[in-house]
Amino acid sequence: MIIIGERINGMFQDIAKAIRERDGSVIQEWARKQEQNGARYLDINVGPGSTEPVEAMKWLVEETQKASDLPLCLDSTNYDAIEAGLKICKRPAMINSVPAEAAKMERVFSMAAEYGSEVICLAMSEEGIPKDSESRVALAMELVATADAYGVPIEDLYIDPLVLPCNVAQDHGPEVLETLRQVKLISDPPPKTVVGLSNASQGTKDRELVNRVFAVMAMACGLDAAIADANDDELMAAVATARILLNIDIYCDSYIDVFKQG
Amino acid sequence: MIIIGERINGMFQDIAKAIRERDGSVIQEWARKQEQNGARYLDINVGPGSTEPVEAMKWLVEETQKASDLPLCLDSTNYDAIEAGLKICKRPAMINSVPAEAAKMERVFSMAAEYGSEVICLAMSEEGIPKDSESRVALAMELVATADAYGVPIEDLYIDPLVLPCNVAQDHGPEVLETLRQVKLISDPPPKTVVGLSNASQGTKDRELVNRVFAVMAMACGLDAAIADANDDELMAAVATARILLNIDIYCDSYIDVFKQG
Repeated sequence: MIIIGERINGMFQDIAKAIRERDGSVIQEWARKQEQNGARYLDINVGPGSTEPVEAMKWLVEETQKASDLPLCLDSTNYDAIEAGLKICKRPAMINSVPAEAAKMERVFSMAAEYGSEVICLAMSEEGIPKDSESRVALAMELVATADAYGVPIEDLYIDPLVLPCNVAQDHGPEVLETLRQVKLISDPPPKTVVGLSNASQGTKDRELVNRVFAVMAMACGLDAAIADANDDELMAAVATARILLNIDIYCDSYIDVFKQG
Repeated sequence: MIIIGERINGMFQDIAKAIRERDGSVIQEWARKQEQNGARYLDINVGPGSTEPVEAMKWLVEETQKASDLPLCLDSTNYDAIEAGLKICKRPAMINSVPAEAAKMERVFSMAAEYGSEVICLAMSEEGIPKDSESRVALAMELVATADAYGVPIEDLYIDPLVLPCNVAQDHGPEVLETLRQVKLISDPPPKTVVGLSNASQGTKDRELVNRVFAVMAMACGLDAAIADANDDELMAAVATARILLNIDIYCDSYIDVFKQG
């Protein structure tokens, strides 16, 4: 399981301010900090308030690449902003994200094929997020089949079953875990899986506890990646430990440091 | 997932000393402490050094019952000691444990049928602990079939896939998790499952971290019970959180306290 660092996102006030003032040092510092603490991708999101999302995305990509060689995960519902970012990414990137909606799949999978990008595919449609795992898996199958038709390799797809806050949609929890398991059975090779970890804990009292418990439970169900706070040391320790228990990394007493160093 | 408190065990020096000196206050204090912190059964083990295991077991059961009404889990390879304990247990107890060996199954399942006991069944035979999940599940099936022949209800069986230390037998980890999943498919109703949690972390640097990560990963695979340190607050918080994420308990901000109070 790999961590996609969530911190370069305009929903955080320091990032929004840095974008407005074009202060690249803030972006570069977060890029370095996340990489040093074990992130293997960096999510890049201009945030909800941006008035010029295309220009802001280009600037964020440029500043991030000054400080880190990690691959980027371009995170926007504005596909022009994503494409502007893809054009200047120094290495293959990840597109975050596309739902199972025909027009959006056409745009995103065409871009992915052109730029050799990975794609986060959301288990939702125009009708919203289904509750049961069967319906989520059906949407995953639709996404996989459509990507295949556009020539995007299945190994480049990350299915996101869509985690909801456990205090308002508790019955989704077991369905999300079951979706992670079932997605691994829909094709050979199977698509990868990802979650937006912080969604699980929205509005709960001890968010970091909920995040790290959900992360390792999902890992036991086959989770491949999480968009998460790479600077949450307890989360990173839990993820490193789960990798040991799943026999992914070899045990040594300093396994947490080894995991962070990649 | 329920916690079987591991602490009344003669392998701990304070318990060994209390047994030698017949100092019941130590036993009663641990019984109360574990119950208050969320244990739902209390494991009772006279320890490896006992020269009079039958008498020691009887004394431990009596002292524990003075302080707690929790059901007991009588833990010994000496079945005379277990039977002596069963005779004086005030409520149905759990027998810990029996492997898939004919003579031992005959003795233990006969006792279980007579005393209405639950039984922890070990996925091992005369040949030892198999590595792969298929062999562990085959032993579980043998144990379930034999228990059925003796009239022990399947719901009273706890299959223990046998966790080994992750620093010496790392490849067993995923097999144990897969065994927990598969055991739920061998009968309807299925047997329950249990692990000796502390075994996972023997010899590792941060034992409590390994224990709590393994606990919640196993819960995601359907684990029903763990023999564990009920006074490890971070473990209990992680278990309570996993129960929320599995939609077993209803979320409220004080869910950890609610879990401990049972």
